[in-house]
Amino acid sequence: MAERNLYLSNIPVEEAIKKYLNALDGKLMPAFEEIPSEDSLDRVTACAVYARCCSPLFNAAAMDGIAVKAAATYGARESNPLTLKAGQDFIPIDTGDPVYPPYDAVIMAEDLIQSGDEKMVKILESAAAWQHIRPIGEDIVTGEMIIPGRHRIRPIDMGVLFSGGINRVKVYSKPVVAVIPTGSELIEAAFPSAPSDALLKEGEIIESNSRMFAALVNYNGGTAERFGIIPDNYELLKEAVYKAAGKSDMVIVNAGSSAGAEDFTVHVLREIGEVVVHGVAMKPGKPVILAIVNNKPVIGTPGYPVSAYLSYVTFAAPVLSALTGRADSPPQTVQAVISRRIVSSLKHREYVRVKAGRVGGRLVASPLARGAGAAMSLVRADGFCVIDQHSEGIEAGESASVELYRSMDEIEHTLVAAGSHDLILDVIADMMSGPAFLASSHVGSAAGLTALKRGECHIAPVHLLDEESGVYNAGWIKKMLPQKDVSLIKGVGRVQGLIIQKNNPLGIKSIADICRCRYINRQRGAGTRLFLDFLLKKEGMDSGSINGYTREAATHMAVAASVQGGGADAGMGIASAAKALDLDFIPLGEEEYDFAVLSEFLELKEMRFFLQVLKSPEFIKKLEEFGPNAYTWANIAQIIKV
Amino acid sequence: MAERNLYLSNIPVEEAIKKYLNALDGKLMPAFEEIPSEDSLDRVTACAVYARCCSPLFNAAAMDGIAVKAAATYGARESNPLTLKAGQDFIPIDTGDPVYPPYDAVIMAEDLIQSGDEKMVKILESAAAWQHIRPIGEDIVTGEMIIPGRHRIRPIDMGVLFSGGINRVKVYSKPVVAVIPTGSELIEAAFPSAPSDALLKEGEIIESNSRMFAALVNYNGGTAERFGIIPDNYELLKEAVYKAAGKSDMVIVNAGSSAGAEDFTVHVLREIGEVVVHGVAMKPGKPVILAIVNNKPVIGTPGYPVSAYLSYVTFAAPVLSALTGRADSPPQTVQAVISRRIVSSLKHREYVRVKAGRVGGRLVASPLARGAGAAMSLVRADGFCVIDQHSEGIEAGESASVELYRSMDEIEHTLVAAGSHDLILDVIADMMSGPAFLASSHVGSAAGLTALKRGECHIAPVHLLDEESGVYNAGWIKKMLPQKDVSLIKGVGRVQGLIIQKNNPLGIKSIADICRCRYINRQRGAGTRLFLDFLLKKEGMDSGSINGYTREAATHMAVAASVQGGGADAGMGIASAAKALDLDFIPLGEEEYDFAVLSEFLELKEMRFFLQVLKSPEFIKKLEEFGPNAYTWANIAQIIKV
Repeated sequence: MAERNLYLSNIPVEEAIKKYLNALDGKLMPAFEEIPSEDSLDRVTACAVYARCCSPLFNAAAMDGIAVKAAATYGARESNPLTLKAGQDFIPIDTGDPVYPPYDAVIMAEDLIQSGDEKMVKILESAAAWQHIRPIGEDIVTGEMIIPGRHRIRPIDMGVLFSGGINRVKVYSKPVVAVIPTGSELIEAAFPSAPSDALLKEGEIIESNSRMFAALVNYNGGTAERFGIIPDNYELLKEAVYKAAGKSDMVIVNAGSSAGAEDFTVHVLREIGEVVVHGVAMKPGKPVILAIVNNKPVIGTPGYPVSAYLSYVTFAAPVLSALTGRADSPPQTVQAVISRRIVSSLKHREYVRVKAGRVGGRLVASPLARGAGAAMSLVRADGFCVIDQHSEGIEAGESASVELYRSMDEIEHTLVAAGSHDLILDVIADMMSGPAFLASSHVGSAAGLTALKRGECHIAPVHLLDEESGVYNAGWIKKMLPQKDVSLIKGVGRVQGLIIQKNNPLGIKSIADICRCRYINRQRGAGTRLFLDFLLKKEGMDSGSINGYTREAATHMAVAASVQGGGADAGMGIASAAKALDLDFIPLGEEEYDFAVLSEFLELKEMRFFLQVLKSPEFIKKLEEFGPNAYTWANIAQIIKV
Repeated sequence: MAERNLYLSNIPVEEAIKKYLNALDGKLMPAFEEIPSEDSLDRVTACAVYARCCSPLFNAAAMDGIAVKAAATYGARESNPLTLKAGQDFIPIDTGDPVYPPYDAVIMAEDLIQSGDEKMVKILESAAAWQHIRPIGEDIVTGEMIIPGRHRIRPIDMGVLFSGGINRVKVYSKPVVAVIPTGSELIEAAFPSAPSDALLKEGEIIESNSRMFAALVNYNGGTAERFGIIPDNYELLKEAVYKAAGKSDMVIVNAGSSAGAEDFTVHVLREIGEVVVHGVAMKPGKPVILAIVNNKPVIGTPGYPVSAYLSYVTFAAPVLSALTGRADSPPQTVQAVISRRIVSSLKHREYVRVKAGRVGGRLVASPLARGAGAAMSLVRADGFCVIDQHSEGIEAGESASVELYRSMDEIEHTLVAAGSHDLILDVIADMMSGPAFLASSHVGSAAGLTALKRGECHIAPVHLLDEESGVYNAGWIKKMLPQKDVSLIKGVGRVQGLIIQKNNPLGIKSIADICRCRYINRQRGAGTRLFLDFLLKKEGMDSGSINGYTREAATHMAVAASVQGGGADAGMGIASAAKALDLDFIPLGEEEYDFAVLSEFLELKEMRFFLQVLKSPEFIKKLEEFGPNAYTWANIAQIIKV
């Protein structure tokens, strides 16, 4: 076997940042440039900006009316109207017009009595000197500081820049950040719009992290320069990093930052620069490399998307911030009740993705998948619950602080669903998106009802057969939530069955045949697994006889993907999942997929919108698009008190 | 006098929005385009995006180690190590590599016992089937919805777009918004970098609102197309609006939206389109025009910068949002204690700019200048306190909701100063900006001490002479805050005197001479006004004999600007203000400008940083730059218990 370097350090996150910034001290040299003010939106001022002229530049009328000499109006009152002559006692004036001597006051048009003769007006009240006049410099005075240094220019700053006579403004130059993707297994996403599976060879991975990094760099005020993919070759990688560190202000290398046989990054960086830190006590994201090459910061990031993201946010972002001059606000931190126990190790700080929602007044955060490869959970999450290195975790029901990256406003308008998975949940979420949001976590029917009981969700999508009564859902709800006032929003009928390889090469005909194939099961508490158990019992079959009974997938689509990929021959799931991946399907029964809700939530604005979507012709059309036998919807959106 | 149209409607804000959106119903047609995914950051999806391939596309090793056949490892345990042969029982594998049949499990490198022979390893534990393998589709399954419609693409979405095989994405096209500045008094900001005052003629105004509008449009996801300035000419304006409504998706006209003699906008819009609303019950921003020309929304906005901004935010932003597909989050709303009484009329909803700060645990919002022309107060503000149309205002000390447009995080790190104005406050604010912030409102020394007493600020900059003792500041503090534990941070000595015209055309020599000129005074409670009163008393002069004693300016710079502009001949102020505007100056006395603080605030991190700035050589250098006689700083940053 090739040489492996198993030893990464495990220094705490804050210490790693401090150590790196100390090593970079004096090396991070922000550059500055002078640009036209009209291009300065979102740029950061290099130094304070001082006005070059007053605004207004003259004494200006603040009202439409007439300009007068105040002294000449004295004595006017209701019992003693005064007549003023145009050109002699007054001139007409509009808001913003200059008031020249000898005029020193403005009388509003509304306060004038027209005499019929345009050259004469009457007033019933004298004018105070300087009334209704905006004095010169009222808004901005020459020499006054209008914008401080290190300030990110907002739209409202643009106006005062121009009125203050500032046509050009000195700002931080945008630092160039080279992003180098590495890995022989990576391919460029350059295939045409044909079905893409066919164009990827097994073992190939579409390079995507560098795209995320480039977007993050641009988003944070830098200019990303993405390199082409560098294969796992020491010399090629060395050449690329050397070139990047020469012409850029900062370099991000992804991946090869760990200690595997083909992880060259750390060796390359040691040869051509200084490795300050390799390995940090954080999870995900441990195998990060913080290095300096040619006096430039070079950061080696892990390959898993979540690790890559977290190492960027934790280490690359603060370094970039020193170069852009931007003091980006930290994420909003809120206190939330953690819905499920999170166990963490004292070995590292852990970042657990959570979905947040306001349920019955409490802000609840539900932990999502913790795998570092689960980029989708990053996309679906609302933020991170950060478990301190000195903590062993958080118990269910405890309050903890959560760093949000979705706005609190969206979270407040989100209906939280936890329970059984179905493809229609995504469709509903898409149709709701905007005035309200639907956030689903796929935990299985039983766990969904538990979440409903604990006040952790508004909706539990369920399909649970009561074996004795043969009734779906209501029976289980009564059993599991006896004390609660629960209603059932009727959903869809859907067909469960075996998802099998295209053209059924193993000739599977019934449930009995799964004993002779590689099966993939669903997780405990999933309605689909309970349905399998029900069928096994009916057939008198033993779960021990099934190869793969303990192999678990979390969704119908994951089951279908495993069958499609050849890693399994059969799995239980819904017809729409088989159809989505063009697989064969053996129907075994129809079931009722409904939505359990606490009755008190029925009046929520977001819930009414959810019901509206369910009933809409657009939604029914979407159901039809899943295929002729996938769904039925006779009672959809009916509300039944359980 | 020319014809005037004095009659604007006064319909409530929400009603105006509703009426306008109803009139636009069916006319706002967002356009869509397909763009490369790599350019899609910050764009809004036109419809849900479904994955075109799985990620991973194969069963992949989740660890570095070896791929094995699980069945062949059964029986291995510590007392019965099993030896595996390379190529037969295992192959070496790195994280991310595909696991092909017959291999179906991965054993981590850390769990292997090397035998010295590369072709052999020992294991002490059997492997479970599928352990340490990421199954195909674990992250993304073909056909799965990865991003919903109407979603603004974030950096973290870019990764899944690429791994899901999405190279091109259908997004909302960026709507083109024409911005038409109008007004014969306006000039383009195109002068070179010479002192700009010299290049502006009296009566001219640098066009700036359209620059702010353009920035707002771009910021909100549109593409602004700014027109050149259209003079106040009916036919030219008509032509411009007609052309803009033809080729753009939306038009903003600024200004001429009111009912003055030269306010043509509403007449033009009536001729070539439909005016849905003219005049809304809001302040500032009343004379807004909501119109439709050629089925396009055309919004006429008032000319004052604050009115212009508010009419954009209130009316243009929601219309633009319908075209961009962006559901921008509403501003963060917080509850704050209002520091000064705000009186408002039942005639309109009023937007009062406020400065917010956390003082001793309470979030305090201090109202700023309410003039619609004060663009700088918009820049300096942290948000708006919105006074409902049905409310007559808010009493001091009451809690009210404030819409913030500065981040709460910055506000939490802001030192709030209220009191006397000096140019050095801006310098300090600039030097602090970043780790902490300084926000000053210029209310005068006495009002500053009142604010300190009421817990509305951390710092009160003061220069108050106790006439009896001849001692600055400490005496007043004892008198005004007898119950409080106050400290005085020593600031600077500065010279007060008369700011007069360059070359002193009136031959002013002493305070006695102000009786024979046009004077401009400071507001009540300002230390500078008290100093004038002290001098008048000493000279036995009567304030009634001074032309302009009641004419008030709020800052030293405003006084200097009035003198420079010729609207006044003399005013009391500090030497640095006279120097900033190149005016003559007659020194009348040196005073002590210090910072009063509650002693409990001395330990605040932000206060320590403030003291650090005061003591820094960089700050002393800035003081020197104000001129040889402007400031002295013998005891700067010394802390004296009062």
